[in-house]
Amino acid sequence: MFERLIDHHCHGVSPANLDPPGFSALMSEAHKPHSAFFGSQFDKPLGLAIRRWCAPVLGLEAFASPQDYVARRQALGAEEANRRLLRAAGVTAMLIDTGHRAGDILDCAGMAAASGVPCPEVVRIEAVMEAHADAGGPVDSYPDRLAERAEKAVGLKSIVAYRAAFDLDPARPGSAEVRSAWSRWLEKRATTGPRRLEDPVLLRFALWCALDLAAPAALPLQLHVGFGDRDIFMQRCDPTIFTPFIAEAEEAGVPITLLHCYPFEREAGWLAEVYSNVFLDVGAVLNFTGPSAIRVLSDAMEMAPFSKLLYSSDAFGLAELHHLGRLQFETALRTILDRWVAGGSATRADADHIAGLIAFGNAERIYRRF
Amino acid sequence: MFERLIDHHCHGVSPANLDPPGFSALMSEAHKPHSAFFGSQFDKPLGLAIRRWCAPVLGLEAFASPQDYVARRQALGAEEANRRLLRAAGVTAMLIDTGHRAGDILDCAGMAAASGVPCPEVVRIEAVMEAHADAGGPVDSYPDRLAERAEKAVGLKSIVAYRAAFDLDPARPGSAEVRSAWSRWLEKRATTGPRRLEDPVLLRFALWCALDLAAPAALPLQLHVGFGDRDIFMQRCDPTIFTPFIAEAEEAGVPITLLHCYPFEREAGWLAEVYSNVFLDVGAVLNFTGPSAIRVLSDAMEMAPFSKLLYSSDAFGLAELHHLGRLQFETALRTILDRWVAGGSATRADADHIAGLIAFGNAERIYRRF
Amino acid sequence: MFERLIDHHCHGVSPANLDPPGFSALMSEAHKPHSAFFGSQFDKPLGLAIRRWCAPVLGLEAFASPQDYVARRQALGAEEANRRLLRAAGVTAMLIDTGHRAGDILDCAGMAAASGVPCPEVVRIEAVMEAHADAGGPVDSYPDRLAERAEKAVGLKSIVAYRAAFDLDPARPGSAEVRSAWSRWLEKRATTGPRRLEDPVLLRFALWCALDLAAPAALPLQLHVGFGDRDIFMQRCDPTIFTPFIAEAEEAGVPITLLHCYPFEREAGWLAEVYSNVFLDVGAVLNFTGPSAIRVLSDAMEMAPFSKLLYSSDAFGLAELHHLGRLQFETALRTILDRWVAGGSATRADADHIAGLIAFGNAERIYRRF
Repeated sequence: MFERLIDHHCHGVSPANLDPPGFSALMSEAHKPHSAFFGSQFDKPLGLAIRRWCAPVLGLEAFASPQDYVARRQALGAEEANRRLLRAAGVTAMLIDTGHRAGDILDCAGMAAASGVPCPEVVRIEAVMEAHADAGGPVDSYPDRLAERAEKAVGLKSIVAYRAAFDLDPARPGSAEVRSAWSRWLEKRATTGPRRLEDPVLLRFALWCALDLAAPAALPLQLHVGFGDRDIFMQRCDPTIFTPFIAEAEEAGVPITLLHCYPFEREAGWLAEVYSNVFLDVGAVLNFTGPSAIRVLSDAMEMAPFSKLLYSSDAFGLAELHHLGRLQFETALRTILDRWVAGGSATRADADHIAGLIAFGNAERIYRRF
Repeated sequence: MFERLIDHHCHGVSPANLDPPGFSALMSEAHKPHSAFFGSQFDKPLGLAIRRWCAPVLGLEAFASPQDYVARRQALGAEEANRRLLRAAGVTAMLIDTGHRAGDILDCAGMAAASGVPCPEVVRIEAVMEAHADAGGPVDSYPDRLAERAEKAVGLKSIVAYRAAFDLDPARPGSAEVRSAWSRWLEKRATTGPRRLEDPVLLRFALWCALDLAAPAALPLQLHVGFGDRDIFMQRCDPTIFTPFIAEAEEAGVPITLLHCYPFEREAGWLAEVYSNVFLDVGAVLNFTGPSAIRVLSDAMEMAPFSKLLYSSDAFGLAELHHLGRLQFETALRTILDRWVAGGSATRADADHIAGLIAFGNAERIYRRF
Repeated sequence: MFERLIDHHCHGVSPANLDPPGFSALMSEAHKPHSAFFGSQFDKPLGLAIRRWCAPVLGLEAFASPQDYVARRQALGAEEANRRLLRAAGVTAMLIDTGHRAGDILDCAGMAAASGVPCPEVVRIEAVMEAHADAGGPVDSYPDRLAERAEKAVGLKSIVAYRAAFDLDPARPGSAEVRSAWSRWLEKRATTGPRRLEDPVLLRFALWCALDLAAPAALPLQLHVGFGDRDIFMQRCDPTIFTPFIAEAEEAGVPITLLHCYPFEREAGWLAEVYSNVFLDVGAVLNFTGPSAIRVLSDAMEMAPFSKLLYSSDAFGLAELHHLGRLQFETALRTILDRWVAGGSATRADADHIAGLIAFGNAERIYRRF
C-alpha cells in the first residue's frame, strides 16, 4: 500500500529470552500486571492481536494459545523472534527514542542490525539532563551537552507530560531561577542518589533549550501526550493545555509532534488544524486497541489535515509491537480510505496521495536531518 | 448468548401505578422534565427504545405510541408491569444499590419477589453516614455502623463524584479534622434539619472507612462516574482525576468499579489497563443512547482488558430500564463480537470467552460475598 | 428530505473575488494557513469535500484540482459563485451572526439578496459592547443599547468562550464593579485605541443583560463552544463548566444553543438531556470533518433529545461552506436515520418526525420572533 513507511517514534526491543511473566509485563502499561484481578494479560485487545498476527510469524497457527505462543518464542530465542518480527514489520526506517530504560533494550545499532533498516536516534531531553546531573555538570552547560548529544539525532523528545503535565508555566525561566532549582535538585540527589527530573523550572529550561536547538534546523520536538502508564495525570495532559508553549514553538518554526494522544486524538487533530507546526500520530494505541484500532485512527483523521498525520508504532520491548503497529496502521488506514473512495468522498488517486503523506511524506518533510 | 448474566449495579423499581407525567419524569435525568422546551420525553433515544422493546412485553405492538404505552401500563397495574418487565430482563442476579430515594422504590426483598432472582444489597456509604447523623451517632462509631450495615452486603458504593467531585484531597483525614467537620455538620442540621452530606472531610472519611472495611474481604467499592443528573460538575468527575485514591485502593487490594462513565468511557478503559483494581461498565448509558448504544459499549471495549468489564443496567424506578438494559447490552455486545469474528480479529471461542467474562465471570470473581 | 431547513447560525460570505491565498485562508482556522508545514490547505477533509461537492456547482467535474477550482471561481466572479452556491444550499432561512469581521463579508440584506431567502439577524452581545465603548457611551446605557440593536433580531450570541472561557464567575456583577471595570477598559482604550472586550466583569455584565433582555421573549442565546481558531483555551471551553450560568438561564426560561461543540458534542448532548433550556448543533464541524461528518453528528445524536438538536452551517466567508453544510448535514442525518430504520430501532415515520424536528421544528419553536 505504501512505497515507504517511516516509524517516526519507537523504542528498542528486549534482547532477553522472555518467559511468560516477562512477556506479559511488556504487554502491559500496568504497575501490577500480574495481579489476579487481571487474570491473563492476553485477555485484552492487544492479546487477541498478538495471537492473531504474530503467531504466524513465529511459525504457529493464527490464534495460538498464549502458552503456546510464549513457549514457541522462547524456543526460537529472542534474537530469532526479534529478527522475524522486525523484518515482518517491513518499515523503511525507525526513529528510535533512546531515553527510556535504555539498559533493558537494544540501542540504535542493535535495532538496525536486527531489523536491517536505518534506525536514527531521537534524543530525550529530560534523560540528557538527568545524565548531566549524574556527571556533575553545571546547569549552564546543559545546552551544550544537549547539542552534543543531538548532533547526529534526527529529533528531540520531551516527556514533560509525565513529569509536570501540560499546565506548566510556559515562559522561559530566568537563569537565577534555573541555577537555584539545579542546586536544590543536586542537593536532594546528594542525599538520595539519582532522582528523575521533576522540577518544573528545570523541565521548562530543558524545553526552551530544546526550542533553541531545534529552531535553526527546524528539528522536530516530539511530545508524549495522553496514553501511557499510571504516572500520567491524564486530564492535565490534554495537549490543548499546552498551547502557549506550542505557540512559542510555532513562532520559532519548530514542528511539534504529538505522540499517541489517546484519549485526546480529536483535540490533537484540532490543534493540527489551527497550529501550523502541530503534527500527530496515534502510536501504540493502535496496538492496545486491537480490533478497535480503526476507531482511533478515524478519530485522528476526522479533522487533522492529511499533511499533519504521521505513523508510529511506539513499540517498546516487544518486537511484536513493531510488527503489529505496522499491520494495525496499514489495515486501519486502508479500510478508512477504501470507505471514503467507495462512498464517493475521495478518488483513488486522492486516497493514494493521502496514504503517502501519512506513511512517509510528512515525516520526510519535517525530519530534515533524516 | 450467556449462561448467566449479573446486573452488578441497579436500583429498585417504583411500585406506583405511574401516570404519564410520573412515567416521563422517571425517563429523564432532567430537573424540569416537563418543560415545553422538551416537548415529549419520548422524543429521545430512550423513548424510541421503550416503544420498540417494552411495548411487546406489555402486549402491545412494537412502536406503540407514547400515549398507548403508558395507558396500557396503567391498565395492567404497576405490579404486573414490573413483574413482566423484570422477568423479561432475564438476568441471573441483581445487585441493588439501596441508597437513593429508598422510600420511592422497592427494596431488595421486593425486587427479589418481583423478579424471581437473588437481589443482594450494595450499601451506599454516604447514605449510611447521613442516617448515622440523623440517629445522633458520634462520628467515631461510623466505621462500626458501616460494618453493621454492610454485614450482608456484597459491595459498597460511593457517590463522592456528586458531592465533592474527584478533585478531592485523597489523603486519609485526621481524627481531629473529622470530629470538627462532624460537629459543624451537626450544628447546621440542628438549624436546618437533615442535610445531605457534602463536607469534603467527611466524604474522605467515609471513603477511607470503606477501604478499611473492604480490604480484608476484597469487597468492591462502586464509584459513580460521569452521566447522571445536573448535580454533577462533569469535568471534575473525570475518573482520571481520582487516581491518587484509586492507587490507595490498589495497594489495599480493593476493586473499584467505575459506573456509567459517560463521556469518560475511554478514560475508564485506560484506567482498567493501568490499575489492576479498576473495573468498569457503561450502565444506564446503554439505555439513554437507544439506537447508538453500540457506540458507547465500543468505546469501553477499545482498550479495557476483557477481564475488567462488567454489566449493569443502572435501572432506577422503571422496570423498563431493567429489561432494556439487558437487551441493549446483549445486542451491542453480540454485534461487536460478531464483527470481530467476521473481521478475523477473534475466533468464535474467543468471542464466547469474552462475553462470559463480561456477563458474569468478572462479577463473580470480584463480588466474593455473592 | 425536509419540508424546510433553517440554518440557525451562520455568517455572511465574502464579496471579494478571492485569489488562491485568499480562498485558502478562508478554508482554515489557522493563524498561519500558508505555512509550508501545511502544504496545501486542500490536503484536509474540507478540501476533499469542496472538490467533491462544490466543483459541480461551479460547472466543473467533481474532484477538480484545487488550482482549477479556484481559477474557475475567479473566472465566474464572486457574485456569481456566491449566488450559485448559496442557492444550491437550498435552506429556507439563514440566521446571520453579524458580529465577526462585519466589514469583510455581506450583511443580512446582502445575504438575503444573494441567497433569495430571509436572513434575519443574530446580535453578538460582545460586539455591541465594543461598539458602545467606541461610541463613548456610559456602561449604564449598555442594556438599552443592546435592546435597540436587538429590536429586530431573532436571537443573541455570546463568544464568552473565546474571551474568558467558561470558568467565569457566573454571578451577576454589582454596578460598582461594572462601572470600575468599564473605566479601566476605557482608560486602556484611550491609550491603545479600540481593544476587544476581554474583561471578565464586563463579559459577565453583557451575559446578564442578555438574559434580562431575552427572558421576556424567550429569545435564544447562542453560545460558541469548542471548535474555532487558536484563541480558544479548549479545556476551559467544555460547556459542562458553564452549568451555573446555564442553570440561571433555565430559571429565566431562556434557551441556550450550544454551537459547534467539538470535541464536546457528547457533553453538549448530556446537557441537553438534563437542562430543559439547552439546545445544540455541530455546525461547521460537519464541514471541517468532510468524509467523517457522520461520526460527529452521531456523537451529538447519541444522547441528546431529538427535540433539542438544531442545524447550522456556521459558514463564514465562503459560500462553499453554506452549500456543504447543508449537504453534509442532510447526508449524515439521512444515513443515521436510515440505519436506525434498517436496524429496527425506529419506524420510517419516527425517522421523518426526528428529521423534521432537527431541520426546522426545534428552531421554529425557540426562535419565536422569526
